[in-house]
Amino acid sequence: MTRPLPFDIAPWSVGLSGVDAERMGHRESVFALSNGHIGWRGSLDEGEPLGTTGAFLNGVHEAHPMPYAEDGYGYPEEGQSVVNVADGRIIRLLVDDEPFDVGSGELAVHEQRLDLRGGVLHRDVTWTSPAGRTVRIASTRLVSYAHRAVAAVRYTVTAVDGAASVTLLSELAANEPIPGLHPDDRVQAALDRPFVSVDHHAIGTTATLVHRTRRSGIAVAVAMDHVVSPAVDQRVETSPDLARTTIAIRLGAGEHLEVVKLVGHAWSADAAPDALRDRAEGAVADAARAGWGDLVAGQRAALDDYWQCADVVVDGQPRLQQAVRFALFHVFQASARIESRSVPGKGLTGAGYQGHTFWDFEAFVLPVLTATAPDAAAQALRWRHAGLDAARARARQLRLAGAAFPWRTIDGTESSGYWPASTAAFHVGADIAAAAMHHVQATGDAAFERDIALELLVETARLWMSLGHRGADGRFHIDGVTGPDEYSALVDDNVYTNLLAARNLAGAADAAERHPAAAGALGVGEDESSRWRSAAGDMAVPFDESRGVHAQSAGFTDRKRWDFAARDPYPLQDNHPYVELYRTQVVKQADLVLALVFAHDAFTPEEKAAAFAYYEPLTVRDSSLSAAAQSVIAAELGYLERAADYLAETALIDLDDLQGDTALGVHLAALAGVWMAVVAGFGGFRDGADGIAFAPRLPPDVDLLAFGIRVQGRTLRLEVEADRTVYRLTGGGVPLTVRHFGEPIVVEPERPIEAATPPLRETGPAPSPPPGREPRGFRDALAG
Amino acid sequence: MTRPLPFDIAPWSVGLSGVDAERMGHRESVFALSNGHIGWRGSLDEGEPLGTTGAFLNGVHEAHPMPYAEDGYGYPEEGQSVVNVADGRIIRLLVDDEPFDVGSGELAVHEQRLDLRGGVLHRDVTWTSPAGRTVRIASTRLVSYAHRAVAAVRYTVTAVDGAASVTLLSELAANEPIPGLHPDDRVQAALDRPFVSVDHHAIGTTATLVHRTRRSGIAVAVAMDHVVSPAVDQRVETSPDLARTTIAIRLGAGEHLEVVKLVGHAWSADAAPDALRDRAEGAVADAARAGWGDLVAGQRAALDDYWQCADVVVDGQPRLQQAVRFALFHVFQASARIESRSVPGKGLTGAGYQGHTFWDFEAFVLPVLTATAPDAAAQALRWRHAGLDAARARARQLRLAGAAFPWRTIDGTESSGYWPASTAAFHVGADIAAAAMHHVQATGDAAFERDIALELLVETARLWMSLGHRGADGRFHIDGVTGPDEYSALVDDNVYTNLLAARNLAGAADAAERHPAAAGALGVGEDESSRWRSAAGDMAVPFDESRGVHAQSAGFTDRKRWDFAARDPYPLQDNHPYVELYRTQVVKQADLVLALVFAHDAFTPEEKAAAFAYYEPLTVRDSSLSAAAQSVIAAELGYLERAADYLAETALIDLDDLQGDTALGVHLAALAGVWMAVVAGFGGFRDGADGIAFAPRLPPDVDLLAFGIRVQGRTLRLEVEADRTVYRLTGGGVPLTVRHFGEPIVVEPERPIEAATPPLRETGPAPSPPPGREPRGFRDALAG
Repeated sequence: MTRPLPFDIAPWSVGLSGVDAERMGHRESVFALSNGHIGWRGSLDEGEPLGTTGAFLNGVHEAHPMPYAEDGYGYPEEGQSVVNVADGRIIRLLVDDEPFDVGSGELAVHEQRLDLRGGVLHRDVTWTSPAGRTVRIASTRLVSYAHRAVAAVRYTVTAVDGAASVTLLSELAANEPIPGLHPDDRVQAALDRPFVSVDHHAIGTTATLVHRTRRSGIAVAVAMDHVVSPAVDQRVETSPDLARTTIAIRLGAGEHLEVVKLVGHAWSADAAPDALRDRAEGAVADAARAGWGDLVAGQRAALDDYWQCADVVVDGQPRLQQAVRFALFHVFQASARIESRSVPGKGLTGAGYQGHTFWDFEAFVLPVLTATAPDAAAQALRWRHAGLDAARARARQLRLAGAAFPWRTIDGTESSGYWPASTAAFHVGADIAAAAMHHVQATGDAAFERDIALELLVETARLWMSLGHRGADGRFHIDGVTGPDEYSALVDDNVYTNLLAARNLAGAADAAERHPAAAGALGVGEDESSRWRSAAGDMAVPFDESRGVHAQSAGFTDRKRWDFAARDPYPLQDNHPYVELYRTQVVKQADLVLALVFAHDAFTPEEKAAAFAYYEPLTVRDSSLSAAAQSVIAAELGYLERAADYLAETALIDLDDLQGDTALGVHLAALAGVWMAVVAGFGGFRDGADGIAFAPRLPPDVDLLAFGIRVQGRTLRLEVEADRTVYRLTGGGVPLTVRHFGEPIVVEPERPIEAATPPLRETGPAPSPPPGREPRGFRDALAG
Repeated sequence: MTRPLPFDIAPWSVGLSGVDAERMGHRESVFALSNGHIGWRGSLDEGEPLGTTGAFLNGVHEAHPMPYAEDGYGYPEEGQSVVNVADGRIIRLLVDDEPFDVGSGELAVHEQRLDLRGGVLHRDVTWTSPAGRTVRIASTRLVSYAHRAVAAVRYTVTAVDGAASVTLLSELAANEPIPGLHPDDRVQAALDRPFVSVDHHAIGTTATLVHRTRRSGIAVAVAMDHVVSPAVDQRVETSPDLARTTIAIRLGAGEHLEVVKLVGHAWSADAAPDALRDRAEGAVADAARAGWGDLVAGQRAALDDYWQCADVVVDGQPRLQQAVRFALFHVFQASARIESRSVPGKGLTGAGYQGHTFWDFEAFVLPVLTATAPDAAAQALRWRHAGLDAARARARQLRLAGAAFPWRTIDGTESSGYWPASTAAFHVGADIAAAAMHHVQATGDAAFERDIALELLVETARLWMSLGHRGADGRFHIDGVTGPDEYSALVDDNVYTNLLAARNLAGAADAAERHPAAAGALGVGEDESSRWRSAAGDMAVPFDESRGVHAQSAGFTDRKRWDFAARDPYPLQDNHPYVELYRTQVVKQADLVLALVFAHDAFTPEEKAAAFAYYEPLTVRDSSLSAAAQSVIAAELGYLERAADYLAETALIDLDDLQGDTALGVHLAALAGVWMAVVAGFGGFRDGADGIAFAPRLPPDVDLLAFGIRVQGRTLRLEVEADRTVYRLTGGGVPLTVRHFGEPIVVEPERPIEAATPPLRETGPAPSPPPGREPRGFRDALAG
């Protein structure tokens, strides 16, 4: 691990002083701003030094041919990749004709600070040019939650020690390549300049670029305007790939120039370029009318609303407190305004994974949204629902019934090039179904169930029926699929997959029963749903009797054990072929242990303990998706130190760049895993058919843990102390019954109730993680 | 199936009249000539109409980057592809300035005839030009067995009905692209013009082109000279990619021009271009000195020697007779003069599979060579031995011990781009080991065992030890590998793989015991070889007790059964994804049934019957490698009609173009399978630790079946009639004991002995093949 960037510790912000030109990518991801529709990486205003550029619009992608060394039926012929849209972040500054550059002159102050409550990125600079002229630069950047198509920058230059000529060049720059999108040179080359210019022009002080992608045919308009104080002339020029506004002023000592740059965006695969241009320019005009103060206030208001339920208080551990809020902030901004779009694995903070979304959004992120920002969760599920036609077509291509959702995608069609770890990982369908069921249960939104969830459940249930079969043993088996653990593939009866498929099948039958007319319209009859119930009831769940533990998949526990004594460097996949990883007992990421979380009521406490004891020493956490699940089960089993270790690991994944790839974007699902580790882990939150349950305990060295969840439109917050938990229900209506360590308690609206914490059951030492993969230990991690 | 080309039926030749311009590729493969070093497809002399061009030198290939949609550790970065070398086949003819073209004028006679005893390709043409001038053209083409570097054409033109001006343009043409080498456009483009010119010149009447491949750096020299009668002037011109000799003469009515074109070849990755040029020109000069008659005689002599043992007589079935000899001819010419090179899956008859060799050469072809042309077999094994360093490096890369031989290769390095069906198919190592053991046993060549076979056995044994592991059940398990059946992959304990691995391990221990010094030099100690014996003895062999049948691999018989009722078109892989094929009970090619052949003594007769009954209805024969093995086991079980069906299928695979892809080259292993179906199937030939056994029976409607095998330098021939078999041993020395239907009989040299055929055990009807994959029935097939 490289030394992490020295972010400062504060309860509601993340700040970084100085500039390390070699490690800009990390900061750019951490400081990225997004509203789920627009994403701007946290690059410096002047664009240099640069890690990787990044100005994204959710859904804007280029298509490219998929290269294969050997062909196969059903291999996707075309892939998708996120590309940079015209980039409105750039504001270059000249002071007495000398370009401001953090690498020249003297930099007395340089700080970037992400405001987790204000939803803005501040930058403060005091710079003395090589010629000796000192200026103070303050910029504040936002991607608006209220004005979905708008991002904005307020840029202020103050002449500190004498008069200075100040020139700002503010740009829209198109066709900036993103290196490393694809390992194939030809594909990369096709993505380097994805846009052709359709239009560019200036009207008054508004400049607009309109482009279209070459292959995917997506048109994008980006417009900018500037509000300048004091008022000075703006020179506005445009060319196919560059629009530039030049603002020049002579400032006296102590005087300052303030420029508010407003950038509007519009894109469509269908709309005419002129219409898009007008939309982008209209967005700018509307933001200008509202004014900077209103934009900033809108950020705060949206976050106040979010934090009211979502905030997690961790008193006594300031670094964890910061990390937890940082994580929840990224979860929020990745999805705040998605409106029926996917949420990529990196959100809109980087181009990692080519901007694709994966199953982990539904499995890890969506439950957090359902519990804290349910409207965003509904939007994400609506996107999956809109993708049903593509998923049905993919199922037909795969000779399956129902819908086969893509493993990785931007537009809903499959974009993966290695089927054993993608197409075969059919559990994505069950993950979507689980997220939909959970959302319905948590919100009580019957219309959503009828219009959206039901069809998702029905079509995924049909997939399982055609994928699986009933064996001679009478059980329902699902063979030759890949579970969450990417160090195994094409296995039979993966426990995670089978249990989630069983829930999917039963959930489809339940939903069909609740909505008979809608189900009938989908062709679901009594016969079909009773077959679903029967398959769900008879689902095979491999258990190794001789070892007394569940097998991750059939035969897993009989496989050769990984030779940990060889002390190979991690991640193992960098130095070992799949053929070795797949045939041995080594686990990249929680798989059976994830089943213990998501299908918690399918296991006895003893089975959970046996499973954790067996899989903990095999699980190398080469995926960022692992630690959170391990934290939850460690907490459930009473291994609170281990649970805290993994909580710290998932919380610091990006601030400490634990995988060395945060430069490609934050690990959104791992950040959502922080919530999971806090709420489901230490909070013991479970929900199931029999309602909501908690078993709250404090993490070590924490004085107070507080968190909230949304329950059917209301907010339930818990304040956990060492010996007791206070439950507080906000919002009118009937009381809510929850179980507290198994005992039902009734929470009346607006009347907090206190419940005592039972003593912790004695546990032995936690099972050992693999050699070389011991967690840092939360105390070390949180010491920074 | 398209209507097959109407080859005529003759005992020792294959002839075809007329020209079907749409289907030239098929004929070009059938009529391809080779000596294992040079390969010339059977294109027309004048080059058009053309299916696919093809002038190959064994080992000459171009390298290309391997394109991947997603990267993985251990994926080969570079692939190899056969390319055309400078092509010396072309002789264009002008008659009174009109170009001879089978598509113009009138073609009274057009016949090509492959002489299976003479080793030449004849062509006879009587053509009347559009202007009304009639000529007779006779060409005879050969690729010399005696002069390894030489191919030659005798081309004769006779003026039939009046005086004619005749002009011949005889060429060497380089950089002729082969379409369809690779599915990736960029790779294909790199292979289209693989050569840069290094030198071109003419000295006297000899013209030479020297090229070098761009990426693999292989230099190739091709020279030509012409012997012309009557003597006329030759104009010789060269340019970088074309050398041309022009011969013009005025023929009176009845007069003829005879041109013998001699083409010499040389290539090397190391030698200087000048040296190669001299080698190619020297080969031409030497052939010219020998003369045409000598070249032709050399062909006959080599084939007489081959047929003396290898010939299979099938009296009463003329089409089968022809097909069997055609098959054995291609087996011979593919390997006659390989001299430590690989034999591609298509021989040198086409560029299918990019010219790669696969495991089926060792499994199917090499035993035939050992039994009929043991020196060629030894050469092929020496090539594998020479590839040990590359195979050891590959094993290290894969984190395995010993040697991991490539799945597909030209130069010995892995060139496959889909690892689940290549790298994971580790059985290739055991197939090589089996071929080496069989060769040693059949030849008694102790020096070969010590110098070549031992190291092959030792290093492959080491691979198995590192690949497998001992389970809690005490058995040795090999998990996560792929067996012969390409509709399954990454399975545990594939019976074929495990049984051949066990033989490999035990064979390595045996060989080490026989050659202790050589084994010691390889670091083999008593400990290691006893671990091999122990693993071999404890090898897991999955047997499904409830169904009373071996499972092709662990759990196979529990999988979902393929839905044959859907009547999907074959081959299934064209319309079904791997993820479906792999998880269901459907078998592309004999796998367990192949184990019944190669590890025949590991099964009881009852187990064989149960296995055939179980797998026959699942085996769709989408691979050409299947029918022969099924024929052998059908014959062993007494299903002689079914055995004949499959014998006919494998024998006619290319003459009838049963898979529709013979244009890419002949199916060499399937052709070798003809020998297997005759000798191991109807002949009942088995060899094992306890010697050689036969159980000869006639195929239906056959009066006499005769075949031979080489046994330790001698030839044993069998003449099988309905009620008896005559055994005839040629060559001096001690008598040979063989088992005839289980009873030992002693065959004295030069003293034929007769043994009676016991009555055929009653069998019920043979198990049904899959719907839509019933064999044609040998009677229909052989009726043509």
